[in-house]
Amino acid sequence: MPRLTLVALVVLLFYSPLVNAGKVLVYPLDGSHWINMKVLIEELHSRGHEITVLRPSDSWYIKPESPHYQSITVNSTAGFDEESFGSFVTTMVNMRREGASLWTRISLEYELVAHFYQMNKQVIEMVGEMFENTELMQSLRNAKYDLVLTDPGIGAGVLLGHRLGLPLVLNVRWTIQGEGHHAIAPTPLSYVPIPMTELTDKMTFPQRVKNILYYIFTRIQIWYITDPNYKPFVHRYFGNDVHYMELFQSADIWLMRNDFTFEFPRPTMPNIVYMSGFQCKPSKPLSKELEDFVQSSGEHGIIVMTLGTLVAKLPEDIAEDIAAAFAQLPQKVIWRYKGKRPSTLGNNTLLLDWLPQNDLLGHPKTRLFVAHGGTNGIQEAIYHGVPLVGLPLMFDQQDNFFRMKARGVAKVLDIATVNKDNFLEALKEVLYEPTYREKMTTLSNLHRDQPMKPLDRAMFWIEFVMRHKGAKHLRTESYKMSRIQYYSVDVVAFLLAVILLVFTVFISAVKFLWRRVFSRSKVKRE
Amino acid sequence: MPRLTLVALVVLLFYSPLVNAGKVLVYPLDGSHWINMKVLIEELHSRGHEITVLRPSDSWYIKPESPHYQSITVNSTAGFDEESFGSFVTTMVNMRREGASLWTRISLEYELVAHFYQMNKQVIEMVGEMFENTELMQSLRNAKYDLVLTDPGIGAGVLLGHRLGLPLVLNVRWTIQGEGHHAIAPTPLSYVPIPMTELTDKMTFPQRVKNILYYIFTRIQIWYITDPNYKPFVHRYFGNDVHYMELFQSADIWLMRNDFTFEFPRPTMPNIVYMSGFQCKPSKPLSKELEDFVQSSGEHGIIVMTLGTLVAKLPEDIAEDIAAAFAQLPQKVIWRYKGKRPSTLGNNTLLLDWLPQNDLLGHPKTRLFVAHGGTNGIQEAIYHGVPLVGLPLMFDQQDNFFRMKARGVAKVLDIATVNKDNFLEALKEVLYEPTYREKMTTLSNLHRDQPMKPLDRAMFWIEFVMRHKGAKHLRTESYKMSRIQYYSVDVVAFLLAVILLVFTVFISAVKFLWRRVFSRSKVKRE
Repeated sequence: MPRLTLVALVVLLFYSPLVNAGKVLVYPLDGSHWINMKVLIEELHSRGHEITVLRPSDSWYIKPESPHYQSITVNSTAGFDEESFGSFVTTMVNMRREGASLWTRISLEYELVAHFYQMNKQVIEMVGEMFENTELMQSLRNAKYDLVLTDPGIGAGVLLGHRLGLPLVLNVRWTIQGEGHHAIAPTPLSYVPIPMTELTDKMTFPQRVKNILYYIFTRIQIWYITDPNYKPFVHRYFGNDVHYMELFQSADIWLMRNDFTFEFPRPTMPNIVYMSGFQCKPSKPLSKELEDFVQSSGEHGIIVMTLGTLVAKLPEDIAEDIAAAFAQLPQKVIWRYKGKRPSTLGNNTLLLDWLPQNDLLGHPKTRLFVAHGGTNGIQEAIYHGVPLVGLPLMFDQQDNFFRMKARGVAKVLDIATVNKDNFLEALKEVLYEPTYREKMTTLSNLHRDQPMKPLDRAMFWIEFVMRHKGAKHLRTESYKMSRIQYYSVDVVAFLLAVILLVFTVFISAVKFLWRRVFSRSKVKRE
Repeated sequence: MPRLTLVALVVLLFYSPLVNAGKVLVYPLDGSHWINMKVLIEELHSRGHEITVLRPSDSWYIKPESPHYQSITVNSTAGFDEESFGSFVTTMVNMRREGASLWTRISLEYELVAHFYQMNKQVIEMVGEMFENTELMQSLRNAKYDLVLTDPGIGAGVLLGHRLGLPLVLNVRWTIQGEGHHAIAPTPLSYVPIPMTELTDKMTFPQRVKNILYYIFTRIQIWYITDPNYKPFVHRYFGNDVHYMELFQSADIWLMRNDFTFEFPRPTMPNIVYMSGFQCKPSKPLSKELEDFVQSSGEHGIIVMTLGTLVAKLPEDIAEDIAAAFAQLPQKVIWRYKGKRPSTLGNNTLLLDWLPQNDLLGHPKTRLFVAHGGTNGIQEAIYHGVPLVGLPLMFDQQDNFFRMKARGVAKVLDIATVNKDNFLEALKEVLYEPTYREKMTTLSNLHRDQPMKPLDRAMFWIEFVMRHKGAKHLRTESYKMSRIQYYSVDVVAFLLAVILLVFTVFISAVKFLWRRVFSRSKVKRE
């Protein structure tokens, strides 16, 4: 009988997804990051966990009411609303097209940095207000959450998690200090390209110089953006000896929106869990109208185009060029576009305000995806094995597309120089050059061939943290060391000093003996 | 219909362990390593794969005939047979007990190093003979294996894999150059303790000095053992620009006999798969006699003792002391011991030539495991949650036990100083101090709480390599860089030179201007 119980226990431990329902406090990031977080929240909810979302009062997307979570609204005046963001994008696109002067470009870059500085400042103010709101903090403490799940692209969730003394799970690609790996995994700059450099893991000497210079540059930028905001705040609430990055580095599990069909191979850590494509799922049937339209493409198949949640419009002349290029193809085109209907639009092109991206990408008739290069879209393209034409606009989009280009599954255009001819040429190349589809199929097969589904893996590790109140055994505490200690600078200096000392003593001894011998022989001679 | 096919495909890709039967060429290491490899072979066989084992003609354990594999016997005269190994162990134990002089210890260490040197030399000779045996090589080529599975503790399998141009999967804890991680993952010596140092991942300054000194020492030792053997061989067969470690570093998957309930957390790589405990399984019922003996222990439970496959005997006086200590306990003891029956043996102790270790450790009555510290035994103890008393003898055993001691689940004794009293004291401490069992239960729970069974994970990745003819996307090729490139020494030197140049030019310009101004003012004054 005890044997049986033991066997049952073993089976349970290894196979069962059963876990007592837990309580999760979520601090999300807005925009496309929220779309990702919602996937985790809905899955957690469906597994019986209770979710509470902390939402900023001026959120764009995070609804206060949902069947999947309760929400607590916190005061926020980020001042960076969807409208002003949209106009910012338009300014940036126009500036790149008009070939702005170096000075204008630098000032735009500065504006962006200033904006992130401002955003961080407001986040810190918001968190400070929460920390001082004893009633709110007490109610959060009383709720006895099992863990905080947060996107460390802003620091609020991480700060709150530590204030409440709760285990921390990160849904991450970027931290407030850049690409997530850099915070906890060794990153040899000789083969790990810094994001935005458009370098691969195999670099020439000049490329390695570029990589290191970029690294230094991004560090300076980041220090300017985050240090003045986070440093005093963290010193005030967590002690003068705590660096704010330690709060991030001590997170239990890093659910990385990434894997090695997307990222170049690089060192990682035991508590990094790759969940690239966790939001992807098999496609569902299309609506009757859409399916009819798709089927009407016959053997030519369809092209799907969307530039992401934030960019629904384009400068009119670009839209005209794109529409004209599409019109010359035998394929059917489904294009998410909210701007003025281009006059050049062909009969083969359907404009939609919104499109079922996943269902379209998974449709067997889909031949090509024209995208802006957000991580979600690219991962869905990899999942469904659809080759890409890229029109990256900002942020990490260029860099994401570079990774796809390096793998031979995408053709990338510059929004500054795109016109009817080069757009048409790019479409034709990806449509008719078979290597694009072949390589994308290979990449898709590699991505899908995993021991378990990325979303299940993410759930496993979130529930693991619930079961064991953290994942300490997977996490180094090397972040507590100073850089001098971490890189063994002190030890090497000490050993060199010892060698020098021994050498000096030896030389002195030899000199001393030499002199004695020498003086003696002198004496003798005399 | 096409939708359905797609869904079926997705389901297949994510859930199915189906794979076409593959052909695996195994080059194992003898001794306890073979026990591990056999577990993988039997599982591969049960999944329908065809296995061929290359066995040295003077193998101790690897049988030429088996229902699970075919074998090809290759000529070998390693000269390190079981008998001579046994006497070597006895010499070593005696020497440690008699408090040998430093000189004797060093000469023993040297003897060991010389032995490994000799072993490597013979391996190289054996591989050379194989390479020159055109008939054998042709038949191996004709067999069209999917991959080579090998233990890189010796280099034969790795060399052969490259010669045949086949994907490589390593079943590994040690390579011919030391601990496996060191070959491919960054290893910051500030928090990754070098094996044998008995340090944890949290070190004081003197400990960090010790760690680096040990590192340097082990490197020198390894160079002495492997370089003279492997270098000329690899240059001859693979080209002058190839370093033998590159052949190891380019392996597709590293199945590491390790995980983070055993190892301290440290950087890892995407192609390292942890499979610690893959050989563990739920216990099976004991034979009637053994079960009766175990049950007769009542509430006190039993103690299991074995010192591994290689050490069946002990110096008589130690055996007497151990038996006397056991005799004083109310527990029952099952002891694997082939030596002379100790006169002090109590009624509670059963001596056996062989014991069903896994079934005993998994028995609910088992309270304590007295072991020598081989990885297999320790991992089985973790799996079954049985606390340990250690009598490490050689190799990595002391170090393995140190890891368990650091986690508070083991008491370790020195074979040189063990006697009846301190052995009894250690047994009582682990039996009656509840923290040992509690901490071991926690460790066991952490170890068992994985998304999939370690053996299944190992199988998945072996079959992954079959399906995709390697796992290139998970492997960096940074090993192809020189150390100067890898550590960016050249780039840093270049940047420093540029800074120096700019600075020099600036200073010269200032000097030049200064002089002109100065000389003018001189002129004016005159």
